[in-house]
Amino acid sequence: MKAAIIHAPHDLRIEDAAVPPIGDWDVRVRVRAGGICGSDLHYYHHGGFGTVRLQEPMILGHEVAGEVEAVGAAVTRVRVGDRVAVNPSQACGTCRFCQEGRANQCLDMRFYGSAMPTPHVQGGFREVLVCTEAQAVPVPAGFDLQRAAFAEPLSVCLHAARQAGPLLRSRVLVTGAGPIGLLCAMVARHAGAAEVVVTDIADAPLALARRIGADHALNTRTAPDALAPFSAEKGKFDVAFEASGNGAALAGALGAVRPGATVVQVGLGAGETTLPMNVLVAKEISLRGTFRFHEEFGWAVDAITSGAIDPTPLLTEVVPLDQAVRAFDLASDRSRAVKVQLAF
Amino acid sequence: MKAAIIHAPHDLRIEDAAVPPIGDWDVRVRVRAGGICGSDLHYYHHGGFGTVRLQEPMILGHEVAGEVEAVGAAVTRVRVGDRVAVNPSQACGTCRFCQEGRANQCLDMRFYGSAMPTPHVQGGFREVLVCTEAQAVPVPAGFDLQRAAFAEPLSVCLHAARQAGPLLRSRVLVTGAGPIGLLCAMVARHAGAAEVVVTDIADAPLALARRIGADHALNTRTAPDALAPFSAEKGKFDVAFEASGNGAALAGALGAVRPGATVVQVGLGAGETTLPMNVLVAKEISLRGTFRFHEEFGWAVDAITSGAIDPTPLLTEVVPLDQAVRAFDLASDRSRAVKVQLAF
Amino acid sequence: MKAAIIHAPHDLRIEDAAVPPIGDWDVRVRVRAGGICGSDLHYYHHGGFGTVRLQEPMILGHEVAGEVEAVGAAVTRVRVGDRVAVNPSQACGTCRFCQEGRANQCLDMRFYGSAMPTPHVQGGFREVLVCTEAQAVPVPAGFDLQRAAFAEPLSVCLHAARQAGPLLRSRVLVTGAGPIGLLCAMVARHAGAAEVVVTDIADAPLALARRIGADHALNTRTAPDALAPFSAEKGKFDVAFEASGNGAALAGALGAVRPGATVVQVGLGAGETTLPMNVLVAKEISLRGTFRFHEEFGWAVDAITSGAIDPTPLLTEVVPLDQAVRAFDLASDRSRAVKVQLAF
Amino acid sequence: MKAAIIHAPHDLRIEDAAVPPIGDWDVRVRVRAGGICGSDLHYYHHGGFGTVRLQEPMILGHEVAGEVEAVGAAVTRVRVGDRVAVNPSQACGTCRFCQEGRANQCLDMRFYGSAMPTPHVQGGFREVLVCTEAQAVPVPAGFDLQRAAFAEPLSVCLHAARQAGPLLRSRVLVTGAGPIGLLCAMVARHAGAAEVVVTDIADAPLALARRIGADHALNTRTAPDALAPFSAEKGKFDVAFEASGNGAALAGALGAVRPGATVVQVGLGAGETTLPMNVLVAKEISLRGTFRFHEEFGWAVDAITSGAIDPTPLLTEVVPLDQAVRAFDLASDRSRAVKVQLAF
Repeated sequence: MKAAIIHAPHDLRIEDAAVPPIGDWDVRVRVRAGGICGSDLHYYHHGGFGTVRLQEPMILGHEVAGEVEAVGAAVTRVRVGDRVAVNPSQACGTCRFCQEGRANQCLDMRFYGSAMPTPHVQGGFREVLVCTEAQAVPVPAGFDLQRAAFAEPLSVCLHAARQAGPLLRSRVLVTGAGPIGLLCAMVARHAGAAEVVVTDIADAPLALARRIGADHALNTRTAPDALAPFSAEKGKFDVAFEASGNGAALAGALGAVRPGATVVQVGLGAGETTLPMNVLVAKEISLRGTFRFHEEFGWAVDAITSGAIDPTPLLTEVVPLDQAVRAFDLASDRSRAVKVQLAF
Repeated sequence: MKAAIIHAPHDLRIEDAAVPPIGDWDVRVRVRAGGICGSDLHYYHHGGFGTVRLQEPMILGHEVAGEVEAVGAAVTRVRVGDRVAVNPSQACGTCRFCQEGRANQCLDMRFYGSAMPTPHVQGGFREVLVCTEAQAVPVPAGFDLQRAAFAEPLSVCLHAARQAGPLLRSRVLVTGAGPIGLLCAMVARHAGAAEVVVTDIADAPLALARRIGADHALNTRTAPDALAPFSAEKGKFDVAFEASGNGAALAGALGAVRPGATVVQVGLGAGETTLPMNVLVAKEISLRGTFRFHEEFGWAVDAITSGAIDPTPLLTEVVPLDQAVRAFDLASDRSRAVKVQLAF
Repeated sequence: MKAAIIHAPHDLRIEDAAVPPIGDWDVRVRVRAGGICGSDLHYYHHGGFGTVRLQEPMILGHEVAGEVEAVGAAVTRVRVGDRVAVNPSQACGTCRFCQEGRANQCLDMRFYGSAMPTPHVQGGFREVLVCTEAQAVPVPAGFDLQRAAFAEPLSVCLHAARQAGPLLRSRVLVTGAGPIGLLCAMVARHAGAAEVVVTDIADAPLALARRIGADHALNTRTAPDALAPFSAEKGKFDVAFEASGNGAALAGALGAVRPGATVVQVGLGAGETTLPMNVLVAKEISLRGTFRFHEEFGWAVDAITSGAIDPTPLLTEVVPLDQAVRAFDLASDRSRAVKVQLAF
Repeated sequence: MKAAIIHAPHDLRIEDAAVPPIGDWDVRVRVRAGGICGSDLHYYHHGGFGTVRLQEPMILGHEVAGEVEAVGAAVTRVRVGDRVAVNPSQACGTCRFCQEGRANQCLDMRFYGSAMPTPHVQGGFREVLVCTEAQAVPVPAGFDLQRAAFAEPLSVCLHAARQAGPLLRSRVLVTGAGPIGLLCAMVARHAGAAEVVVTDIADAPLALARRIGADHALNTRTAPDALAPFSAEKGKFDVAFEASGNGAALAGALGAVRPGATVVQVGLGAGETTLPMNVLVAKEISLRGTFRFHEEFGWAVDAITSGAIDPTPLLTEVVPLDQAVRAFDLASDRSRAVKVQLAF
């Protein structure tokens, strides 16, 4: 089996890897589609992010979908031949966070393609994957697996939307028009937002933002005052999703939201951020972090397969595994790409 | 009538001022007690804070209580001779924030001793004050007016506590043991907190924190790892009140609260703050601003007069108006003072 | 000017009425469309509901839209020729509920076509209406006024949806497929519900429920166990909207919702209702009332005019004013009608 | 070992029972104190409540505390000689409700002295009890075990208080002055309620309500209009705890709470209840059920052992096990008793 293994910054290799054995409660999946995420790019360019650093070679990838080719003896909900989206998170189920319904905060989380624990958790950019039955979420027969591979980033955005409270007829700002920002915009629209405004510093993703339903898509590099009309009288937006990880974008969001608004910080960014705390205090803003997802993975699969949310406009190109380096370089170029997937 | 008027940094003068005329819905109050607040000290030392700067001489003070000496023709709820705590905020009642129940965000707020609007709103450190009937909240006959003058800072902390959600049997961290931090600790206790921990970088206010009921009072200057036991396994506190305005204290609070916790930023600080955003994101923390108060002023008067909350241990000294400069210097010295009041 | 005036049960007359004078802040509207609501039908059939009884003749109607034919001297936001949806509620703006943002609970509410206060508040089923500028909410030039007249019942359902909390990817039950129930189903879908199930005891409105997007529409008269599959393992629905006012429907909803669910009671019903309190207690259900609306009227106009929600499938027939009695009889027949409007 | 075993209504016997074996994760407790609860009385008088009926003899009791006399090989947190309050609930930990943090809704709950499942779960009114380590919550050495035995009913009330949202400076009504109502009043006071009013139809428990801190204790049998002053202008209470299980008390509470208030139904009552739904709808009240508790058991032990809440004023009498029938009769007489405990 081939896998995409990161050894060091800019040292991504397609190498042979062993197919793990399959246990009684496991499912073996022939991977078909794998989306490249921002954190994959961080490992590729920088060898990690924040305090997390590669300590050993690691298979990347956590946005994957494929076909079941074998199941363990105890598996009942999934069958050979099923198409599945693979949930990359495996929580322990017994720690205090799991028991209180916050499995995404599990003290012993195993999340694909993560260098947080050492030994690292190997990822999903490989031809064959063995996961637990609970991680393999079936999609309808014949369903497009490239679309199914969006379940993971959509889960992140559904979880982010829950941090914001009800969005029905709300005015929503999204700062950052990468895949996560655009999916947040789609989720806000799906949740009944009355107005969705997206900002970025690049024109290409803003054009896409308009295509997927943003009411306004504003370039805050070429028009630094673009949010001024929304900032009058203490601000107009009820909710903002900060998906750029950029301090200036956050400051702009704080200025444009109304008193009592919620700003959800979705991007992890560089670690430290400087923000105008006096604005947060004076307008009594809630700045909330959001981290991965839990039951929202099932929600995402359902939203995608029912057609309630269609992420395919975000898919720029599908690249064969053996051209993974080209795929990563393409995914890093915001003027050309939004979401790039590998095909296996 | 004498008043304490700030002209420029470190230029505080006791000067004559005219007694304003009294309208039909107004009340004239003989001021007896006035607490010196952190924002008064900012004007005294720096001539303002953040972008707010003195443009003209201004009477300081917004924590005052006194006796009614005259009432307008239309006044019905207050009588001559009543003792009253004076609510320093006067909202317009008609702007969109007033109409949605957020009067503290009023677009045309008049708040005593504030240089935010120009002309400035003159404050309450004066022998005679004219306010509206609604601003004059009666306390029982003979009630201690020094205690009543704590109604304003207690309102701030009750409002802050509401941003935190239910505190019943919660574990609460307070960073900063100034008057606001200590009142937050008292409010947390009053609201049924199971554990209250206070941190500061000075020993004197920490000793007071213990006296007013903190379970632990920790000096994070002399013991920088004092919060480490609370930071294990992603953190233990359910809620934190950040009342120091210091970035390091905020970072410590983010480290010590549990996933999903709320950190209420009470201190305005210097404007910009750098924070470890990756911690906020990964633990899905809500960082909420809180600003002044609204109906909580009535709550505070009720809590103080019923004895439910007794702020008097915080009162360091009462200084006559003509020694106001000494009072301000004393209030600025955290090794000697917590709350200093002027007597008129 | 002609108006539809109820004198006593089943005594609805088309009579002349005086056109009121127009004040400086008022707008005179030539009414074009008026929807017949359940409360209009209560007055028509029973002379009132609960403890509310007709004490004098009253013009019915509160779901109206029309064209502005004159404006007062101080009016600035609306012009002659504008098409408007008319908000039938006029709150005082100064009582404690108005000041805390709950204007729908105003202690001095004036709501069109309501016999709650005496003298009654005359309604909108008249050729010419004078309202305040704030009540006249413009729609785009040429916009269909029959569609605009749905703003009022849609407001009720948007307000109801807010009582339920976030609906994103939730499973929603609606009991009662009258206009309010069906609009609740449309709002739930608009707010991102994953599944919407509607029940009723008549087949005709259930067929319409399917057309407007319900996943399942179940007749609980012909199939009393229709909700059984949803009631297993303590219940499946996250939210229910009870829009029938029928105790058996409420009991069914309590059985089919999951522990911790919210059941929003939208229909007023007959006053007293018997419910299985042990189910509500054991499953820790929240049963919440919802009453009219406030800022949701503007939301509804925006949702209708933007096309986000299209209520026109609910419109059964438009009947000329002089056939109002026929219109009321038609609107009372659930086998033939959902929403019936008068044309003026 | 002796135990108090209910065979049929009014057929309570003190009989020999076998001491169960102790497993590796178990703790054997010598029971010292056991409070008689309302549900014990239901079994005693009626053989059950609602649809729950005795199918076989059952040891009653779930409010117990005692001393550890043996521990299994794997037990680490509890030692022989420890005094413990015993948590009567044992959830499965793996069902969907346990995994989402709602263990009190566990699909396979084992709760002491409950005839809900058959075979019934045997209760704690016995000389020796074997429970899991997690159920045995230590109290300080030498701590009064009668006081510790209040942990269970206090847990119920802490859980109920969480359904109500923040109680800080709120106005709280409690209907029903039995042990649960009185503990709700104590919890409300502990959570910072500004005003606590208790109603009942018997004078004796109302006198006790005053002693434990109620501002007003009103007999609604002798003064049916006692709540009228609180019902003016749509009602004054922010929160009500209905702890009587009586429909008239609930109707009174709905009338006396303000628009948007929460009424928490704590008592299970007889099953069906008739309520004035028009009041609930028009005032947009939330009527919320509350059922048992989860992590609140640890909270209750902490609140009692720290002295934050002292339930001992509620303890009417301690009766030896061999006089259990007298104890149950005494506990049934509201003119003489609030909480009656058995001693073992």
